[in-house]
Amino acid sequence: MAKKLWGGRFEKITDPLVEEFNKSIHYDKILARWDIIGSMIHVKILERAKYLTAQEALSLDNELRVISESIANNTFITDDKCEDIHTNIQNALQDKLGETALKLHMARSRNDQVVFATKLYCKSSITKINVDITNLSAAIVDLVARNDIIIPGFTHMQHAQPVYLKDYLGAYSKMLLRDYERLVYISKNMKITMGSGALAGTPINSSEYNINLEEILKEPRFKDFKEVFIIEPTSNSLDSVSDRDFVIEIISALSIVAMHLSRLAEDLIIWSTKEFDFIEIDEAFCTGSSLMPQKKNPDVLELVRGYAGRLCGNLVSVLTMMKGLPLTYNKDMQLDKEPLFGSFEIISKELKVLAGLIKTLEFNKEKIDEHLKDESLYATDIVYYLVKNGEAFKNAHTIVGELVKYSIDNHIAIKEIPEDILKEKFSDKFVKAEIIKLFDPRVSVESKESIKR
Amino acid sequence: MAKKLWGGRFEKITDPLVEEFNKSIHYDKILARWDIIGSMIHVKILERAKYLTAQEALSLDNELRVISESIANNTFITDDKCEDIHTNIQNALQDKLGETALKLHMARSRNDQVVFATKLYCKSSITKINVDITNLSAAIVDLVARNDIIIPGFTHMQHAQPVYLKDYLGAYSKMLLRDYERLVYISKNMKITMGSGALAGTPINSSEYNINLEEILKEPRFKDFKEVFIIEPTSNSLDSVSDRDFVIEIISALSIVAMHLSRLAEDLIIWSTKEFDFIEIDEAFCTGSSLMPQKKNPDVLELVRGYAGRLCGNLVSVLTMMKGLPLTYNKDMQLDKEPLFGSFEIISKELKVLAGLIKTLEFNKEKIDEHLKDESLYATDIVYYLVKNGEAFKNAHTIVGELVKYSIDNHIAIKEIPEDILKEKFSDKFVKAEIIKLFDPRVSVESKESIKR
Amino acid sequence: MAKKLWGGRFEKITDPLVEEFNKSIHYDKILARWDIIGSMIHVKILERAKYLTAQEALSLDNELRVISESIANNTFITDDKCEDIHTNIQNALQDKLGETALKLHMARSRNDQVVFATKLYCKSSITKINVDITNLSAAIVDLVARNDIIIPGFTHMQHAQPVYLKDYLGAYSKMLLRDYERLVYISKNMKITMGSGALAGTPINSSEYNINLEEILKEPRFKDFKEVFIIEPTSNSLDSVSDRDFVIEIISALSIVAMHLSRLAEDLIIWSTKEFDFIEIDEAFCTGSSLMPQKKNPDVLELVRGYAGRLCGNLVSVLTMMKGLPLTYNKDMQLDKEPLFGSFEIISKELKVLAGLIKTLEFNKEKIDEHLKDESLYATDIVYYLVKNGEAFKNAHTIVGELVKYSIDNHIAIKEIPEDILKEKFSDKFVKAEIIKLFDPRVSVESKESIKR
Amino acid sequence: MAKKLWGGRFEKITDPLVEEFNKSIHYDKILARWDIIGSMIHVKILERAKYLTAQEALSLDNELRVISESIANNTFITDDKCEDIHTNIQNALQDKLGETALKLHMARSRNDQVVFATKLYCKSSITKINVDITNLSAAIVDLVARNDIIIPGFTHMQHAQPVYLKDYLGAYSKMLLRDYERLVYISKNMKITMGSGALAGTPINSSEYNINLEEILKEPRFKDFKEVFIIEPTSNSLDSVSDRDFVIEIISALSIVAMHLSRLAEDLIIWSTKEFDFIEIDEAFCTGSSLMPQKKNPDVLELVRGYAGRLCGNLVSVLTMMKGLPLTYNKDMQLDKEPLFGSFEIISKELKVLAGLIKTLEFNKEKIDEHLKDESLYATDIVYYLVKNGEAFKNAHTIVGELVKYSIDNHIAIKEIPEDILKEKFSDKFVKAEIIKLFDPRVSVESKESIKR
Repeated sequence: MAKKLWGGRFEKITDPLVEEFNKSIHYDKILARWDIIGSMIHVKILERAKYLTAQEALSLDNELRVISESIANNTFITDDKCEDIHTNIQNALQDKLGETALKLHMARSRNDQVVFATKLYCKSSITKINVDITNLSAAIVDLVARNDIIIPGFTHMQHAQPVYLKDYLGAYSKMLLRDYERLVYISKNMKITMGSGALAGTPINSSEYNINLEEILKEPRFKDFKEVFIIEPTSNSLDSVSDRDFVIEIISALSIVAMHLSRLAEDLIIWSTKEFDFIEIDEAFCTGSSLMPQKKNPDVLELVRGYAGRLCGNLVSVLTMMKGLPLTYNKDMQLDKEPLFGSFEIISKELKVLAGLIKTLEFNKEKIDEHLKDESLYATDIVYYLVKNGEAFKNAHTIVGELVKYSIDNHIAIKEIPEDILKEKFSDKFVKAEIIKLFDPRVSVESKESIKR
Repeated sequence: MAKKLWGGRFEKITDPLVEEFNKSIHYDKILARWDIIGSMIHVKILERAKYLTAQEALSLDNELRVISESIANNTFITDDKCEDIHTNIQNALQDKLGETALKLHMARSRNDQVVFATKLYCKSSITKINVDITNLSAAIVDLVARNDIIIPGFTHMQHAQPVYLKDYLGAYSKMLLRDYERLVYISKNMKITMGSGALAGTPINSSEYNINLEEILKEPRFKDFKEVFIIEPTSNSLDSVSDRDFVIEIISALSIVAMHLSRLAEDLIIWSTKEFDFIEIDEAFCTGSSLMPQKKNPDVLELVRGYAGRLCGNLVSVLTMMKGLPLTYNKDMQLDKEPLFGSFEIISKELKVLAGLIKTLEFNKEKIDEHLKDESLYATDIVYYLVKNGEAFKNAHTIVGELVKYSIDNHIAIKEIPEDILKEKFSDKFVKAEIIKLFDPRVSVESKESIKR
Repeated sequence: MAKKLWGGRFEKITDPLVEEFNKSIHYDKILARWDIIGSMIHVKILERAKYLTAQEALSLDNELRVISESIANNTFITDDKCEDIHTNIQNALQDKLGETALKLHMARSRNDQVVFATKLYCKSSITKINVDITNLSAAIVDLVARNDIIIPGFTHMQHAQPVYLKDYLGAYSKMLLRDYERLVYISKNMKITMGSGALAGTPINSSEYNINLEEILKEPRFKDFKEVFIIEPTSNSLDSVSDRDFVIEIISALSIVAMHLSRLAEDLIIWSTKEFDFIEIDEAFCTGSSLMPQKKNPDVLELVRGYAGRLCGNLVSVLTMMKGLPLTYNKDMQLDKEPLFGSFEIISKELKVLAGLIKTLEFNKEKIDEHLKDESLYATDIVYYLVKNGEAFKNAHTIVGELVKYSIDNHIAIKEIPEDILKEKFSDKFVKAEIIKLFDPRVSVESKESIKR
Repeated sequence: MAKKLWGGRFEKITDPLVEEFNKSIHYDKILARWDIIGSMIHVKILERAKYLTAQEALSLDNELRVISESIANNTFITDDKCEDIHTNIQNALQDKLGETALKLHMARSRNDQVVFATKLYCKSSITKINVDITNLSAAIVDLVARNDIIIPGFTHMQHAQPVYLKDYLGAYSKMLLRDYERLVYISKNMKITMGSGALAGTPINSSEYNINLEEILKEPRFKDFKEVFIIEPTSNSLDSVSDRDFVIEIISALSIVAMHLSRLAEDLIIWSTKEFDFIEIDEAFCTGSSLMPQKKNPDVLELVRGYAGRLCGNLVSVLTMMKGLPLTYNKDMQLDKEPLFGSFEIISKELKVLAGLIKTLEFNKEKIDEHLKDESLYATDIVYYLVKNGEAFKNAHTIVGELVKYSIDNHIAIKEIPEDILKEKFSDKFVKAEIIKLFDPRVSVESKESIKR
């Protein structure tokens, strides 16, 4: 059992089951570097407020830099007997600096410390996720640039109308763009505050908490933060320590990303079936079967589809945990970490692996062209033809519906129906020479002028 | 069975079970007025694109206005035999205008129509919810203005430090402010587009879809839209008809509101227990028991707490529904409506009823003052005292921890411990006359200077 | 505002917002008939315990029968101004019987009453749902009896091995059987108790609560309860009024049903795509498009797929609502009703509409036979052939994997590869005449002897 | 990159991102011992079906025993480069046995293998969890045996009626009993099958799959399985490999456990507030604050409360993942493991730590007796008094309601109201000497005869 950050009034030692149950170091060690930044800033504040001498501040800052570097080099070994990473770092400081380290926790509480480190972790992770989003978007752009083709578009998973592949996959780019902007907004609105103490504020004047971070963050190990962010004194300390909105907002935004990617995955899985056969997924992105030697399975895509459930579950996990908690901090809130960290990790992996898969995707253009011969894809264009020739829309719709039905019932292609039958049975506005031109995917997509490109 | 918006190729009548299962008019009738606006705009577009004559456009517009007014006056009777409200309105137009009405659906699809009407509904509902949020915030501000008191602050539901009531409840104002801004952001980012058709766009040029709405929206029945919003041509028609991000974002934001309100409710429920007895809830906001005549139950607050589960469930409902749906529109997406409408309705009711309850809340100041006598609330202030007198923080923390323990074990108030014992057993920095001053709630809260007010 | 079941200590009238917010009559009116049964039994108990004279009991029982009949005939008009259905029925009794009705609530609480009525509703609804499950299973059995065919089996949505259609759809029958049994188990374990009062029990001796229901339930209007169930005195009254396990168990079981049906729906949607074309869904179970006249969309199946999200959301709704509620009854628990009732309603509709759709489903046997020609479906059978001829399994697996690859790379069917190449390049165990026999779906499925039929 | 269980047709090596993304060995290693049992049985089957010689079977069995023992001794080191634990064990066998090991996978698929091992893991874990449940129940029984006291009972968190502590906490025993039985039922209904292959069955006759496990399971390392379970041939191989009902049923049952424990935690947290002060939690089960030295926080209970959200999230995770998956196995299903394993682990810890906490709990009987003096707790008993003396219940309820109100408004205890006022203002049935007797907690609880003990 390692030293704790608390204990004076306690006589008994903590029950080992409680030690184990309470502990968070196995997952919150990911916060180490952000906790160090917080401590460096806190040192500056304590110095300004005369709770540390210049000498004390310097030695604390130096030691924090040493630890920070060891974290960056992966040479910092966490002590799993500690309750959490904050305790671990505090103990490391005490081992080195003795009495001086005991002064660091003045006017500070873990409640505040955890929120600070978690918010920095979130800002950094959003920056990284947005790079992943950008890379996947770029992979999509490249893919459609290499494949300037038309494919059947679907509604209700039924043939609807021909569309450009660039528009089909472009829909995913639009989703990713919204995802990107949503995360940027969340990050920008996440206020980094200090001075909340446990819940009631601290004796240090609020003016001391306005910090220019440039000096600290310009060191290479903090390169994730391209833009300097602002640290402010809290404007409501009770809210600051008990607010987890930012966690929920982020997991919600990541759940939407996961949902988008599950849709992309589903499209690609369907396209890679023997029956559709629109695409060929590169072997390096497939796996086989231990029993059936012919198998080439899109496991990656299936996992991406399935993880949408995990993200949704993570969201529920935190929202439900927060339900009905009175103010201010309650220990339940510690349970926001694993869902948060896990969600970032999954989405990051998904984005990266999908970018790789997309880059190597091949389209079976012949097979797709075959599918584009389905006349039903052009039925709407025939309706438009009739409307342009004076038919009221709903009448035109009915006429073409009956035409389709006639074609199916009589096993005759619309193109093969003689003009006189077209005119007599369906509409005198039909001119066969004109109609035939409509059964062309390029004609169809080019006639759609409503899209602002 | 009412006329449908489709049917040409169908010979058989729809199975009655299917009619019943597919139908959405019982809930989407709420979209009627937004659907009308969409139709009015579509009429203008068709006229500009020469698909309607000026005369046809005028008569359609007039009839739409008539229907719109009947909706505003609650005299429009929905035909529950219709599949949905869009069909209902179309049928109403046909009954009045015959052939002309058949032209309205040119270059338009319900997929697009539904998204349009739902987005307008969302913008309008956000505006209203934000009024409710503002009113609840105002009620909180009034309450704390009338009750300039200090109460015990809690962490882990244990006495922590004294805090101003204005800060305690002010934490909820901060949450509500975030809620407000989150909804504003969602509303602003919700793009209102037209021209997607079913999925592939329409033959009408994108330039026709840039619409100045001022003329339409200045009519009194559209007063919900204070600010004129912009209608744009779609930039990706496949995305436009199959995107439900805005629904998820909104339900997520409303889930966070619900979570905040569940916390407020829990605080007030706890405060209204016999044991806490901090507050008195007005009878008009309580209910009784059919068996126990003495009961005065905070039912309203309990429902507010419980509804946080409903909102979370609504969020799951839509996120799970969207999982793995291939492009573009799939009928599953119709199932976004009830969770969306239900979430707005619940939150609106919660905000209104809480504002009423808050306005009439009374604080039992004597009882609260009694609780403030608990010496443990001032332990942190004694720590700060020692630090200010030169003790290292962690040593001071340990000393006060032991002091608290001594006080409990010996059943003696800290205030009653003689100075010589304080100095000998705990710290020679203790000056009893100074320590005694610390056990004052106002001294305690005023010494916390870190909060930027 | 209607009379309430409580009120003596209240002076002020309830705020109209509270009235509206608290009210449950718009959904709990569905409990009317079960509430009546509870009241009839309670009348018997009060009579036995001498709280009612025989005459009073008779008149209450008669009036309850009258109301019960009016409910059965749909002539009972609920008074929407009442708080809930229990209040409504009580008020109706008072209007008819005056003073005598005032005696009915002795030793009874709505907390207990609501649980009783809800459990009866659940038992009845499970019985009905299980009829629906049985009907859908029967429809599947009929369908596969009419279609004794073999189809490609899939893993990872990729061709795996040929399977009987009866086994493919038989998997859904297995799921439905588990669903049936799960619901039966829940129903059987749901204890119907009385005598809990509000939370602390009642002054009536527990022996009075052992009730033989046969007499009451033999009346035609209670025909849903084929088997007489037992009513017991509560063994823990605090648990009885605050337990909602049965609600969660049921919604969980119905969520699993919904998940199963979503899988069946997905299979059928995929099979009905142009590309798969395994099946033809009857027009009466499809819908069309308002824009694209050719469309025949499987809306029913899409809604079934999407509703899996709704059910999952309902489950979250109740589980989250129950989180952290202290004993005993809290008003939050009222919010279990809508998710419960809604879940039963949705699943019942799904089962019925799917049974209809399944009954009219047609298989495109020619198209399926075409797909069965895919040689990769038989790769595992070739592995088994090699093993039977002495090859170690993993070597055989590798050999056939390479054979498949050779076939693809050289665009040559395995069947077309000359025997000498088979022997030289792959395995001397290959005898072409034997291999060729393996490419037969019936040979393949009949060679799988491990399944216990 | 370690050897894979598949690969013959693959030329390219798997992309490292895919390796990482697909891998499950970091969590499925927990299945090692169950996988070994499956392999032992499979060896027997292959021997019986003549796919292994007696010698081969013996050497495989011996080696499996060696690995099994090393797992039991924690000396088996998993190879994290392997895809999963099944691959890891297969590779270990190959390293030792060469060619013979290559024969093991005949007529077997990981799809089937994973389900088998997971079901055994589940049965074993349920057995263990039920021991934990029993221990917590026993701790509760002991606690109430040591504390034969009466406490205020609550509805709506308001004073309701006095109840026995043994009944209050007994309600949790009832919940735990239902939890126990629910898990037993799930375990009993979980069919352990073999012979499904990847989806289509195997060439080995179903009769070979009826296995008597006694011999294998009697070895000490399989001591978790007290009762011999039956292994059967699958009756539907497509269902067997794609069924995850048992996972959902278990997580649902564990979510209900978590919900129950969150309620118990909430009760204890509230009881341990300064204001309630019903209980003293042992220091060994509390933690302190890094800032506030007086703090003794019920962290354990807060985590228990919060984890209810995690379990609910895990349930959503799996239900959503399964939504809309076509038959049969899809890789998405691999994502059932972490939520399943995590749920068992959390609940096991919660049950153990709560049993420890409960054992050391102390009741502040004096403080509780103080609360029991609240006259409102006896209002219902006064109603019953009036009814026994001939008043109709609802009139009695109103009279006592007014009496309570009078007492509050006039700041006079009911006990202090003179008999003449009681008779004049409220009811001539009041005999003060009788009424006064009612304000006794023991009289109150003993008068409730309806509970069957």
